[in-house]
Amino acid sequence: MSTTERHTLARKMVTFMRDEIPLAQTMDLALHDCDEGRLSLAAPLGPNINDKGCAFGGSLVSVMTLNGWGLVELELRMRGIECDVFVGESTVRYLEPVWGDFLSEAQLAEGADWVTFFDTLDARGRARVEVACRVPGTGEKPAATLEARFVAKKRSPDAV
Amino acid sequence: MSTTERHTLARKMVTFMRDEIPLAQTMDLALHDCDEGRLSLAAPLGPNINDKGCAFGGSLVSVMTLNGWGLVELELRMRGIECDVFVGESTVRYLEPVWGDFLSEAQLAEGADWVTFFDTLDARGRARVEVACRVPGTGEKPAATLEARFVAKKRSPDAV
Repeated sequence: MSTTERHTLARKMVTFMRDEIPLAQTMDLALHDCDEGRLSLAAPLGPNINDKGCAFGGSLVSVMTLNGWGLVELELRMRGIECDVFVGESTVRYLEPVWGDFLSEAQLAEGADWVTFFDTLDARGRARVEVACRVPGTGEKPAATLEARFVAKKRSPDAV
Repeated sequence: MSTTERHTLARKMVTFMRDEIPLAQTMDLALHDCDEGRLSLAAPLGPNINDKGCAFGGSLVSVMTLNGWGLVELELRMRGIECDVFVGESTVRYLEPVWGDFLSEAQLAEGADWVTFFDTLDARGRARVEVACRVPGTGEKPAATLEARFVAKKRSPDAV
């Protein structure tokens, strides 16, 4: 699939998120970029601010969770596979305050791969995958990170 | 401090959250109850729904994070201590989907205590505490849990 097709699907998916999840709309979530193996989303500070004038922790984790969910959902959509994708467990680290508009970047966690994920999904109708997300900080280190496990379950009638 | 005073402070604090954090307003966060050692918040499904018709994971974790933050903030306000309270690290478990309006309940994590927290805060101007939050499920088990570390830093000029 071409880069243009990937971008088109990613844009449609972010529109879907905003249409279906009121909080995604409130947070003013937008597609930032995507390429093979990486998806990044953007959000402005305004609707995501807290009482201290920096980004609300709940917004950071929500954007990163949607970013991880989107990474998995996009790979499924690119293959035309209809699944429900759920977040299972996540670890969040808030490392420095975020004082402006922010990005979130998602990719597979170390040791995870799409081949195993799709082989398992094909064999069992469900599969899990570990995703790593980060909100870039002002320096080299991220401002926040999320490691999460996502579970995909096929919607087809023969799903287990 | 009396139960009535605690309730009054808790109500003011939830109003503060809604005024200062746009997402808390959007999620329609409300005080459910509080007593010594426990704070619970409520949120309706409507603004917190996802594409599958159940509660969005980002809403669950945001409400639980605010619930944990509120537990710490309320104890500080009851003692008249002005601090900035930050969430540091959290582990979230999504155990079952939430199909309706939901609650979140927060209390100190096992092994954590306020005496150590306030002694440390008094000595060093900052202290950390572990909080456990849960969204009750349909049965005995919770639908989601969050364990998080919160850090409080005194705002007074002599803070370290």
